[in-house]
Amino acid sequence: MIRYRLEASSDNARAGHIVTDHGEVPTPAFMPVGTQASVKALSSEEVAATGARMQIMNTYHLWLRPGAERIAELGGLHAFARWPHAIATDSGGFQAFSLAERTKMTEDGFEFASHLDGKRMKLTPEDAMRIQGLLGSDIAMQLDVCPPGNAAHADVLAAVERTTRWAERCLKAQGPGQSLFGIVQGGTNVELRLSHAETLGKLPFQGLALGGFSVGEPAEQMHRALVQIAHRLDDARPRYLMGVGSPEDLLIGVGAGIDLFDCVMPTRNARNGQAFTWAGKLTIKNARYRDDPLPLDPDCSCSACRGGYSRAYLRHLFVAGEILVLRMLSEHNLALYARLMREARAAIVANTFANFAAERLAVFRNLPDTTESG
Amino acid sequence: MIRYRLEASSDNARAGHIVTDHGEVPTPAFMPVGTQASVKALSSEEVAATGARMQIMNTYHLWLRPGAERIAELGGLHAFARWPHAIATDSGGFQAFSLAERTKMTEDGFEFASHLDGKRMKLTPEDAMRIQGLLGSDIAMQLDVCPPGNAAHADVLAAVERTTRWAERCLKAQGPGQSLFGIVQGGTNVELRLSHAETLGKLPFQGLALGGFSVGEPAEQMHRALVQIAHRLDDARPRYLMGVGSPEDLLIGVGAGIDLFDCVMPTRNARNGQAFTWAGKLTIKNARYRDDPLPLDPDCSCSACRGGYSRAYLRHLFVAGEILVLRMLSEHNLALYARLMREARAAIVANTFANFAAERLAVFRNLPDTTESG
Repeated sequence: MIRYRLEASSDNARAGHIVTDHGEVPTPAFMPVGTQASVKALSSEEVAATGARMQIMNTYHLWLRPGAERIAELGGLHAFARWPHAIATDSGGFQAFSLAERTKMTEDGFEFASHLDGKRMKLTPEDAMRIQGLLGSDIAMQLDVCPPGNAAHADVLAAVERTTRWAERCLKAQGPGQSLFGIVQGGTNVELRLSHAETLGKLPFQGLALGGFSVGEPAEQMHRALVQIAHRLDDARPRYLMGVGSPEDLLIGVGAGIDLFDCVMPTRNARNGQAFTWAGKLTIKNARYRDDPLPLDPDCSCSACRGGYSRAYLRHLFVAGEILVLRMLSEHNLALYARLMREARAAIVANTFANFAAERLAVFRNLPDTTESG
Repeated sequence: MIRYRLEASSDNARAGHIVTDHGEVPTPAFMPVGTQASVKALSSEEVAATGARMQIMNTYHLWLRPGAERIAELGGLHAFARWPHAIATDSGGFQAFSLAERTKMTEDGFEFASHLDGKRMKLTPEDAMRIQGLLGSDIAMQLDVCPPGNAAHADVLAAVERTTRWAERCLKAQGPGQSLFGIVQGGTNVELRLSHAETLGKLPFQGLALGGFSVGEPAEQMHRALVQIAHRLDDARPRYLMGVGSPEDLLIGVGAGIDLFDCVMPTRNARNGQAFTWAGKLTIKNARYRDDPLPLDPDCSCSACRGGYSRAYLRHLFVAGEILVLRMLSEHNLALYARLMREARAAIVANTFANFAAERLAVFRNLPDTTESG
């Protein structure tokens, strides 16, 4: 089971550790997404080299292929993916709802057709716990109901209530040695969020997550809600903001009191040719980089920047369709995210987080956008 | 300029060094193919870690994109691709003939339409030298005429004669500091090959290559020709068998007296899911590997095998479309090729190459083929 140890705080921002059976995760922390037990394009060694100490992997995908029983027989996700550090898994509910076909939700759970072969499947709270138990993650997530950003109030309310009932069922089905996080829903309705946080806070979860953000609502609306909600989640347990986000979102989230994040943005954007740098976003296919001898970011320690691979070379690789560049940009972006969290942590410990965040936000918000020219 | 230093021989097999301005290349050696200044899926550091000390890059592709002048301005191919070791470039003729569109060959050279944008281009022997000079490779190849494996005798003869005339034009256009190899043609006609080898051997090339093999003729026919031809190429200069081949081909080639090879096979087959191992070819998507906890090859030092990534995991990655596995198989296969050459070299130095090759050939020829079952 995990433990959370608070080390320092700076206003609502918190520095701590999540102590797991697979090492300590200094928080705030960003979890790279290893959807199919692989952070796309990167080896486990490379993910670890960026500084990441916890990955989140995808229960729905791994359940369907290669199968949870198979992974259990091969020693669980840590052995399977050769990732010796901590692993979280989501519940599978989000994909059962958004990726699978002909999905029906009842009080019992989700029924759907596999997006791979059309096979009818059922995912109940008990199934979600059983499957995550087989996968062997350090942190499992409860099955929840995640309404879209534009859902009507009645639907958001119903989602909250069903999520609570599923929370209790998940806790009953929790396996030994695996930690379980509850998921607070409620959209951008602060009152509903706080009430749900209070309800779930009374349950013996090892951590609490905010689900249902970054599902279509404007970023500012999410930010406004976050600063009112995050610090009200029980401060004895880790707080996890699911599926978020951009470097700006992370800074706002940490300031609001969040400890954990995950998002496909750094790796997905990388595969679309976008690098994050401390001086702005860099769209590598832009013609302006044709003759640019500089690395992506002279101030970065990822293997592409350290190795001196120029923007001109990376642009060439991208335009020529060479997959090496997808990996290099992925590693680069994850290194930036990990460093952002490290520096945020140091600022919290020094009790200067507000200044740090304001400075960084000013930079990130005024990033030169290279996507439109060249 | 390169120098060739013979160290030992074992029957016709030779161990030596090609001394270049970018380090010594122990021979026999296999050159990974970095078509677009990138060995597909691998960083330069990874290619070097397999043991390779010379890459061959593609003049046609790099000339069209990103452009030879651009690469020259960025410091040449070594700086551009961050490959500090030796580089050979082909002449571009093969792609001008096989990949470009509406190609016309005259005595002056090739005229064709770029396969990228249809632009009319011209590649003469002088162009081939100028472009390779801009790319800055250690070893340039002459422009040659490479007829298909089923070409009529008159066409093969005409190819030989034009190749000789282009050889002389390339030598006249050779830039300072760059070595140049002549290319012997003649198909599987041993008499024609030997006569062409004699003609080109009189010219001041720094090395001699055999082109026009592995162009559709049966492997046995190539092997029969090789053992009669290779050892008759001038023994003071490196001998390079272009575009060949399988591990078996390499063993036959080394035995015949060849020093250098290149082929896309180890990396292309990797991307199609095929790993070479000392115990046979391994088709990773085969269902038999679903639950296999072993690495590709317990006896291999590539990062995937050393890292303990199981066949079950690699199969999962391949089936799931994760690009990590393409890289892992590519590195693995190049590591096997490099090791095969290292072991062949040691056997030559120990004057036991015939036994070594016979043992290895027996294994490679009796490889269990995993492609058909499971």
